[in-house]
Formats: sequence, structure tokens, C-alpha cells
Amino acid sequence: MKKIAVFTSGGDAPGMNACIRAVVRTAIFRGIEVYGITYGYDGMIDGNIKRMQSHSVSNIIQRGGTILKSARSESFRTKEGRQKAYDQLKSFGIEGIVAIGGDGTFTGAKVFFEEFGIPTIGCPGTIDNDIYGTDYTIGFDTAVNTALEAIDKIRDTAAAHDRIFFIEVMGRDSGYIAVECGIGGGAEFVMVPETETDLKKVVKSLKNLRKSKSSSIIVVAEGDEEGNAELIMEKVKTKVNDEDKEFKVTTLGHIQRGGNPTARDRVLASRCGMAAVEGLINGESNCMAGVVNGDVVYTTFEDCISKTKALKGDHLKLIEILSI
Amino acid sequence: MKKIAVFTSGGDAPGMNACIRAVVRTAIFRGIEVYGITYGYDGMIDGNIKRMQSHSVSNIIQRGGTILKSARSESFRTKEGRQKAYDQLKSFGIEGIVAIGGDGTFTGAKVFFEEFGIPTIGCPGTIDNDIYGTDYTIGFDTAVNTALEAIDKIRDTAAAHDRIFFIEVMGRDSGYIAVECGIGGGAEFVMVPETETDLKKVVKSLKNLRKSKSSSIIVVAEGDEEGNAELIMEKVKTKVNDEDKEFKVTTLGHIQRGGNPTARDRVLASRCGMAAVEGLINGESNCMAGVVNGDVVYTTFEDCISKTKALKGDHLKLIEILSI
Amino acid sequence: MKKIAVFTSGGDAPGMNACIRAVVRTAIFRGIEVYGITYGYDGMIDGNIKRMQSHSVSNIIQRGGTILKSARSESFRTKEGRQKAYDQLKSFGIEGIVAIGGDGTFTGAKVFFEEFGIPTIGCPGTIDNDIYGTDYTIGFDTAVNTALEAIDKIRDTAAAHDRIFFIEVMGRDSGYIAVECGIGGGAEFVMVPETETDLKKVVKSLKNLRKSKSSSIIVVAEGDEEGNAELIMEKVKTKVNDEDKEFKVTTLGHIQRGGNPTARDRVLASRCGMAAVEGLINGESNCMAGVVNGDVVYTTFEDCISKTKALKGDHLKLIEILSI
Amino acid sequence: MKKIAVFTSGGDAPGMNACIRAVVRTAIFRGIEVYGITYGYDGMIDGNIKRMQSHSVSNIIQRGGTILKSARSESFRTKEGRQKAYDQLKSFGIEGIVAIGGDGTFTGAKVFFEEFGIPTIGCPGTIDNDIYGTDYTIGFDTAVNTALEAIDKIRDTAAAHDRIFFIEVMGRDSGYIAVECGIGGGAEFVMVPETETDLKKVVKSLKNLRKSKSSSIIVVAEGDEEGNAELIMEKVKTKVNDEDKEFKVTTLGHIQRGGNPTARDRVLASRCGMAAVEGLINGESNCMAGVVNGDVVYTTFEDCISKTKALKGDHLKLIEILSI
Repeated sequence: MKKIAVFTSGGDAPGMNACIRAVVRTAIFRGIEVYGITYGYDGMIDGNIKRMQSHSVSNIIQRGGTILKSARSESFRTKEGRQKAYDQLKSFGIEGIVAIGGDGTFTGAKVFFEEFGIPTIGCPGTIDNDIYGTDYTIGFDTAVNTALEAIDKIRDTAAAHDRIFFIEVMGRDSGYIAVECGIGGGAEFVMVPETETDLKKVVKSLKNLRKSKSSSIIVVAEGDEEGNAELIMEKVKTKVNDEDKEFKVTTLGHIQRGGNPTARDRVLASRCGMAAVEGLINGESNCMAGVVNGDVVYTTFEDCISKTKALKGDHLKLIEILSI
Repeated sequence: MKKIAVFTSGGDAPGMNACIRAVVRTAIFRGIEVYGITYGYDGMIDGNIKRMQSHSVSNIIQRGGTILKSARSESFRTKEGRQKAYDQLKSFGIEGIVAIGGDGTFTGAKVFFEEFGIPTIGCPGTIDNDIYGTDYTIGFDTAVNTALEAIDKIRDTAAAHDRIFFIEVMGRDSGYIAVECGIGGGAEFVMVPETETDLKKVVKSLKNLRKSKSSSIIVVAEGDEEGNAELIMEKVKTKVNDEDKEFKVTTLGHIQRGGNPTARDRVLASRCGMAAVEGLINGESNCMAGVVNGDVVYTTFEDCISKTKALKGDHLKLIEILSI
Repeated sequence: MKKIAVFTSGGDAPGMNACIRAVVRTAIFRGIEVYGITYGYDGMIDGNIKRMQSHSVSNIIQRGGTILKSARSESFRTKEGRQKAYDQLKSFGIEGIVAIGGDGTFTGAKVFFEEFGIPTIGCPGTIDNDIYGTDYTIGFDTAVNTALEAIDKIRDTAAAHDRIFFIEVMGRDSGYIAVECGIGGGAEFVMVPETETDLKKVVKSLKNLRKSKSSSIIVVAEGDEEGNAELIMEKVKTKVNDEDKEFKVTTLGHIQRGGNPTARDRVLASRCGMAAVEGLINGESNCMAGVVNGDVVYTTFEDCISKTKALKGDHLKLIEILSI
Repeated sequence: MKKIAVFTSGGDAPGMNACIRAVVRTAIFRGIEVYGITYGYDGMIDGNIKRMQSHSVSNIIQRGGTILKSARSESFRTKEGRQKAYDQLKSFGIEGIVAIGGDGTFTGAKVFFEEFGIPTIGCPGTIDNDIYGTDYTIGFDTAVNTALEAIDKIRDTAAAHDRIFFIEVMGRDSGYIAVECGIGGGAEFVMVPETETDLKKVVKSLKNLRKSKSSSIIVVAEGDEEGNAELIMEKVKTKVNDEDKEFKVTTLGHIQRGGNPTARDRVLASRCGMAAVEGLINGESNCMAGVVNGDVVYTTFEDCISKTKALKGDHLKLIEILSI
């Protein structure tokens, strides 16, 4: 293997830069030329491909976002688009690919590999932690800590005014962020898509709070089946029906995607990036490099995409017990 | 003066605890007994009044929120309510009051003083910085830095995807937070209630951005006359009318009220708290202790409430020049 | 089991409060009375033992330090001291103990259990991560992130002046903190007690840096066999012998012990605390509740104390490759 | 004026990048070509001078350090060196200079202007806040907040173990950082070069602490006349002479120079940078652009260098009162 390329795709996640750095430097260390593709699959199609050196990735390990930019590509969903992408890669002599992203990224990579056969390894870059084949995804730990810091701040003001706060965190199909920052933030309730949300229980509990004299934090994953935080707050408020209680909603939004990555995310990103390049050298392909139980593991794209990672059951129990 | 009381009222602000601490310890240092009233004017009416010692305020200088809780009071707007409050204070022998809060708090304090004559001094505790008689209010610096950190994070993800972000910050009648975090965050535009917002200019500028290849940050004070960030984004999006451009909105919300106060807020809060007590001892009353041009100044409640503090003209110019 | 007690001992670690909270609330949830012992084993001997309620642990999950205080006890090393401790516990009717701390804490707990037979479970609270029986210790993740933020700041100034910085982090017998913040901080070298430090290699590499025109970060665990950061810097400086190069040392010190715990530490602390109480109820004793490969595991104190947890071999390799 | 140059010199300070950005963009906005000189006066002599565009300063406002690097120059102290520097500037056609730095930088700039007459304006970039002609220097607010966060963390661990901590902060000739983070951190004592340090009082106070049962924080400016924190701790420890008390020292060191600048520093840096360019256009020279009482003011280099800015007297009083 003489030349490889790396790109980021899908929603950006803190730690993607640390992963790019690891890919670039491991490749150079192993005597492989490395190219960066900007704007994901669109950039592949358009030939936005440039040689990277060791210094190209200096001073980026601590930065959020991605120096290779990211995008979601419509063209790559077509055979024609993928053919163009292949032609571009061929013209550069690319013999291996590292794809940093989530489920959508890997789905594209799998199709592309099966059609054109360029060896490809993925790295799990998404804040949602919803990818099978790795205990944690790159960006998850940072997103949770960002959400947690926000909850800590909101608790200050909730406590000062005895308010009931519904805080919406990211997670369309996954409650991982909600659960971890709910435990860490000492939330009274956490509502996630994986389990049925029992609003009656919440209403009953809030009614029992001493008259307008105590604050509560309720963390809602954006994909909860009862609706977003605003909707859920309205339902609960109507049923609690107590003028002395103040209900507030905060939607944390895109701050969860940015920020300097935590130590955990930088280390994970570095390990996955190195493992992706080592994997390509050792003949692995059509799979993702993740970390399971502390060790690097390669899992087929097929499994990453089709299998789901369950929430830890004891985590929801933890919240119930610790919020008494 | 042998006994004084302190309370917080209105929206909470980081640094209120540092201010309470300064009031309590300065009083004790000067040989005065000091009482804390919880829940603002409501607590005064209900007699939620307790003796405080030096250790009552240990380890709170770094905490957001207010240990004395805060509330907005309907009862205190009535003569009857204020009479009850006066009776409570009398029964404790309170001879002086320190009121930490904003315009609403001072309006209540002024009426109360004029009716019952208990010497009262205010401390400017509000994140909005919209109070005449002090260069900065307690909590403003922390709120700006919290908003700025959020903008830094959002810039990471905006840049990764070349998105246009409208970020709503607090400020119903005042653009202070928006302007300072707009300058500090390198925003392309800042929209504030004090000046007419020129959406045409914004639209024109965004149209000129290279096709879907560059990010922009627009900071909107919640009280802008064109509407909140969501509304303004929709107006702009419709007029830009470019499918390749992605528009996003983030409303920072209540995280701006919480968090550990910055150094500046802790120092300001400490100075104002001490000055309030020293002022009471020296016969000042019906006024606020603020810091103007580096020195403690007492300004009548009348002036604090009726006069307005203008935005620095050169600050808006700064944003125009520096965002080129 | 009707009454249990909890205490913290040894060096404090961020997350200890979250662990205390979990112990207290799980106990109450299970119908058990719970007591807090202040100042560790000394407090046990002196009878500093108080009933705790659910609200005793409100609003502490986010705080560094330990509300139960910590101390190292000389008296508890004597049979006489331990007899007194036992008598105190008996007088309160304590039937189970949760001990939060590190190796030294568990050694004491083991001896005490073997002598007096009160069921005892430990929780791994130490920033050093040097305890067998848990993948991570409570406080480690926070300490690493604190050290990493410091390294990020120092890199700013190192880069501005092209300086060579030796940064000393905690770890008398263990290089865990050094390795993780070395990887995360993009350090050029990491020196740890577990492996032989090759100063010649460092000297050679620094000589090759372009003349006074490039910065380097070297992370040193305080227990490295070549000495502390100051000593190592002097050795290296003498051998590099280049006037144009500026060498600086920063010893991070006790800031690594404090600060709000990270999400990871709060979740780990909560799980271990809950598991300790559940373990006592289920008849476990003389062991520690840790988390291995994502699941709660009980490991005998014997094993925790006598076995050592090796550094991941690929981590040091990672630094070598990624710093090129 | 058609062409100007900008450089940073002396110790780096957070906000220097924001200042460079403001200089570059204001110049371009005013139709002036702008050049960046790397490595301060050395770079001027060596001709390390490059044209800068608007995008050269994109995405740097939030970064610590300085993209133009900094250095202290021996050569510039010689007439020969300055002649070379002048020749270099002439060859580029530079007609005006913005010098970002502290006293040493301005001393060099003054001599150079008096010899060669190229109009020069300074911006106050130093964490020490020891420059006459501006209420605050660029970098001071960030340094204070960094030191304060460290003190907050150390207080956690100090309280857990009832320890007495001596914390050394930067400030060779100036106690500004020590005083502000002392007030903000709730320190029991602050020792600064501007006032005589009364160790007897400290010893007496520490002796009165309940036997080994209470923590204290003492902030020491590195330039205190009694020595550095280590020395002072030893003196105090010897005189307190109490085995039950634990004394610890932490020297914060270079972390105070780095880090993302605070809002205040970014705004100040932006205003000074813009004012420097506007000043050059308006014929100002041989002076510094600072902010006094909220407004931009130009002060002659002569005054900046020769006059001193006194500590606020009431600040030291504040610490005495609030630490009771």
C-alpha cells in the first residue's frame, strides 16, 4: 500500500481532528503517502484531494470541528456519483481509504467498496454513540461533558428560583447522551427513545414537590417518543396544573457538537486512527476500527450498520435510585 | 446601625453569592448583626429571615445562583404586602437593607423606603448590564463569557459544515451581551434592540458568500425589534433563497444565568457588597452602590431606574470592520 | 443489614462526593440507615459519625473534594486505634462499611475486617488509576482532563516562543495520567515509572529541532526513575547544550486533585457507590466494587492491593508515532 | 499611509491574536496594506515580514499565544541591529508600525522611532497589567481567570484535607494578578511586591486556626519582597511550628500565559488594535493606544514607561475584611 486517503463525513464530532492527525502521522510513519479529501463524499467526487504532511496536522489535536470539513452527499447515493469518485481516486493512485463518520458514512463506504474494491476502514466519529462495534464513539465524551456543564449551570438558576427545567439534549435514535448527562447532572428524570416514557409518573412526582419550593431537572433526548422537550413540558405542565410551579425549557442544540475534545475522545480518536491505517496495511477492509473493552477491534461495516448497541439497563435504574 | 438584612430578587445572576458574602462579612467586621431574607420580597413578607454568620457564607464565592433564593413578588406590589414586610423587619429590629437585583428590585426598594423609611442600598445584580449608575452589573461578565464559549463551540461546527448560524443571546431591552460576545466571537453581524436592524444588508452579504462554502455567525439579542433568532432566520433565509446554504438557529437560553462567576464578577460583587454596608453605616440610602470608572459610586434609585446607559457607539462599528 | 457507614480516606479525588451521594441514596432507597464518618479512619476512632439523609447529599454531585473530609491516619495502624474504631462503630450499631479511597485505604479496611468482621466494601477513589480490579478509578478522568487543559494552555505559550517545556503531572508509581494527557496533548515524549526513560533519545531528538525555532512538550510523571521534571530538564539541557533553545518546567501540582468531576467520573462514582451498597446487602465483603469492561465487578481487597494493572503497551507506541 | 506592519514582542499574552486580527482588518478596511513581522524585533532585523490578508487572521480571535510568534531581542538593543531593522522596513515600504507588547517592547519602539522616525503605536499586550495609560492590559483578565480556576480547584483539595496552601501567581513587579484572584478566590492573605508583607500577622492568624481542622489559601505574587511561595511557606511553617498543620505550595507557572482569551480580553484587544491603526492614520505616533475609563486614549511611550499604575488601595482592604 503506497497511497491512502482520509475524509470526514456526516455530522461533525469533537475528536475528528485528532483522528485525522493519527491517520496522517501513522501513514507517514509507515512510509505511506496520505491525502486529505475535503467535504466528504462530495469532495471525493469533485476531486478535492490534497497531499498531507506531518505538519498539516500540527496543532489540531485539541480543536473541535474537522479541518477536512464535512458534508452529506446526495450525488454519492447515485451510481454515477460513485463512479466519478472512483475515477478521481484512481487518478491520484489511492489504494486505501479511511472514512471517519457514523452509520451513513459507513453505509456509503460499504457500497463503494463492494462496487469498486478499494480497501476501506472506518473510524466511529459521531457524538451519538449509537454505533455497534465500539464501546464509545469519537465525540461522545465531549458532547456529554458539554451537556453536563450546561446542566450544572442551569441547576444554579433552577435552584435559585425553584423551577422545573426540561433540558433537551441531542440523540434522535439514541439516549446515550441523555442517560450519561442525566446521571452526571443528578437529573430527576431522563427520557429516551429506547424506553417508554411514563409521563404519569413524572406528573405525580412533580405534584408531590413542596409547593413551588423545589427545583427539578428533567433531561429529554430529542428523539423521545413523547416529543421534544417543549412538547413534553407542555403535556406535563397541563397535567400538573399548579400555578405556583414554573416550567422552563432549554434546548442545548449545536453547542454539543463543538468544543475542544476531552482527553478520552482524543485518546480514542488517536487509537482508532492509528488502527485504521495499521488495519489497511494488514489487509483488513470493509470494516470499522473501534475500541471494545479496552482493545482495538475491527467490526464489519455490515455489523456496524445492522446491529444495535443497547443502553446499559442499570443506568436508568441508577437515575431512579439516585434522584430520591 | 445594629442590624441589617440582605436579599436577592429578580432574575438570578452569577456573583450574587459573592455579593451576599461581602455584605455579611463586612457587616460582621463592622460589628453589625446581619440577617438573610430568602425568596426576595416574598420572603420579607413571610418572615423568611435568618441570622447569618461568617461561616454562613463560606465556600460560596465561586458558586452561581443565590443561596438566598430569588423570586418575583406580586404581593409586594400592594400596600398591604409592603406593610406586612415592614412589620416583619421591625419585629427583627432590622435598621438597614441591602437589596441585590435589577431595575424591578430597585423600584420596589424605592417605594418601600419612601413609605417606611428603612435605609436601603442596592447592588446591581443582573446579567443584562442595563442599569444606570455602574459600568458593569454583577453577572454580566460571566454571562458574556458563557455565551462566548458557546459561540466558540458553534463556530467549530459551523465551519465544518459551512453553515450560517443565528445565535440568540439574552437581552430583552439591551444589546450589551450580544455586542460583547459578538465582538469577542468574531460574529459577522450583531442585532440589538438599541439600533435598527438592517436585514437587507445581511441578506446582501450572505448572498455574496461563495456558494455554500463559508460559515457565518450572527448574534441576535432576544429583544431585537425584528423578532427572535428563529423569526429573523426565516426572514433572511427566504430572501437569500439559496438551497445550497444551510441556516441554523441556536437559542442559548438559561445557561447564560448560571455557572461559576468570573474573576471580574466576583471582584465587582465583593466591592459593591462592601460598599453597600459601608454606605449604610455612613448614612447613604435610597441609592445603589456601583462602580464607575473604577471607583465606587452611589447613585439614587431614581436615577438608576429612570436613566438609561447607552451602548458604546464604537462597538457596533468594531463588528462591522472586524468581520470583513 | 440496617445501618451502614461511609467514609473517604487517603488523597482526595474528584467524584468522591458523587460516590458518597450514591452510597447514601442507594442505602435509603433500600431501607437502610446510613451514617457519614468525617476525616477517614481518624474520624472512625474519634466517633465523628453522623446520620445522613437524602438531602445531606443534595447538590454535591458536581463538586470536587469530599464533604466527608479525608485524612491519613497513624492511629489506625495500631491495634489499639482499630479497637477504638470498632467500639465506636458498635456503639452506633453499624453493620456494614463503604470505604472510598485507594490502596492504603483498602489495606486498612482489609486488616480491620479480618480483625473485627464488619462487612466492608471499597470504592476506588484516587486520581492515579493504579488499582487492580477496575478499568478506571474515580477521579482519574478529571485529573487527566485538568492536566490536558493545562498542557493546551502551555502549548500556546510554548509555540509563541519556540520553547521546550517539561510538564510534571501526578503519578508516583504510575504513568497513567502522564500517558493519557501525553497522547491527548500531542506531547513529543512521555516519561513514566513503568518503563525505562531513554534520555539519549530525547536529547538527540531535541538537537535535531531547527535552531531555536520549534516548541516541544515533554510530559513527566512525578515518579519517573530519572527524577522529577526539574532534574530531568537539567540533565537534558546540559546535554543538548544549545544556548538558542529555551527550556522551561511547569509542575502542575494539586490542581490535578480538584475541580468539578467529569461526566465519566460522576457516572463511575455513582455506579461504584450503588454497587457497594447492593454488594453489602447481597453478602459481599472484604472486596472493592469496580467497573471492568463496562460491568460492575467485585474484586477482593487482597487482589486489589497485591496485583498491578499494566499500562496499555500500545499507548506508548501511539505517542512515538503521533509525535513525528 | 499605504503600508503598515504589526508584530508581537516580549512575553506572550492571551488576546494578542485578537489584537493582530483587529490591526490587520482595520488596515484593510481603511485601504492600507498590512504586513506581519514574525519573532518581534529579531524578525524585523531578519526581514521575516509577510503580507497579510483578511483571511490570514480568520479563526484566531479565540486562540491563545500569537501567530506572529514572540521573542526578546538582543540585537535590537544595538544601533547596528536597529539600522538593519530600519533597512528591512524601508525595503518593504513600511510607513507605520503597530507594536504589541509591554514595557520592554515600548522602550525599543520609542528608541527606534526617535532614531528613524517611522510612526509607531503600541498596544498593551502583557498579562501583568503593569502598564500606565490603560486600565487593563490585554491578557490580564484571562490570566486572572486561569489563576482563579486553579485556586478554585485547589480549594477543593485544601478543604478536604484542612491544608494551608501557598499559591504562587505571576507578577514580578506587580501584584495585580495576585490581588484580583485573591479577592475572587476568597484567599485569606495576598502578598504583593507593592506593599510590605507582614508575616507575623499571617503566622499569628494560622496559629489561631482550630487544631489541624481548617484550610487556608494564601496567594503570593512571584515578586513579593519576602521571596517566592516556597520560601515564604518555609518561613511561616517554621514559625507556626505545629505538626498537625499541613503546608503545601503550588506554583501556577506558565498556564497563566495561555488559554483562550476571555471576552474582556478579546474586546479590549480588538479596540486597541483598531485604535492603533486609526491613530496612525490620524497622525498619532510614539504612543500607546489603551482604554481608560471606557474610552480609547493615546498615551506617550514616555509616560507608559516612566509612570506606574498603583494598586487600588481598597482591594487589599477588601481581602482583609472578606476573609474573616
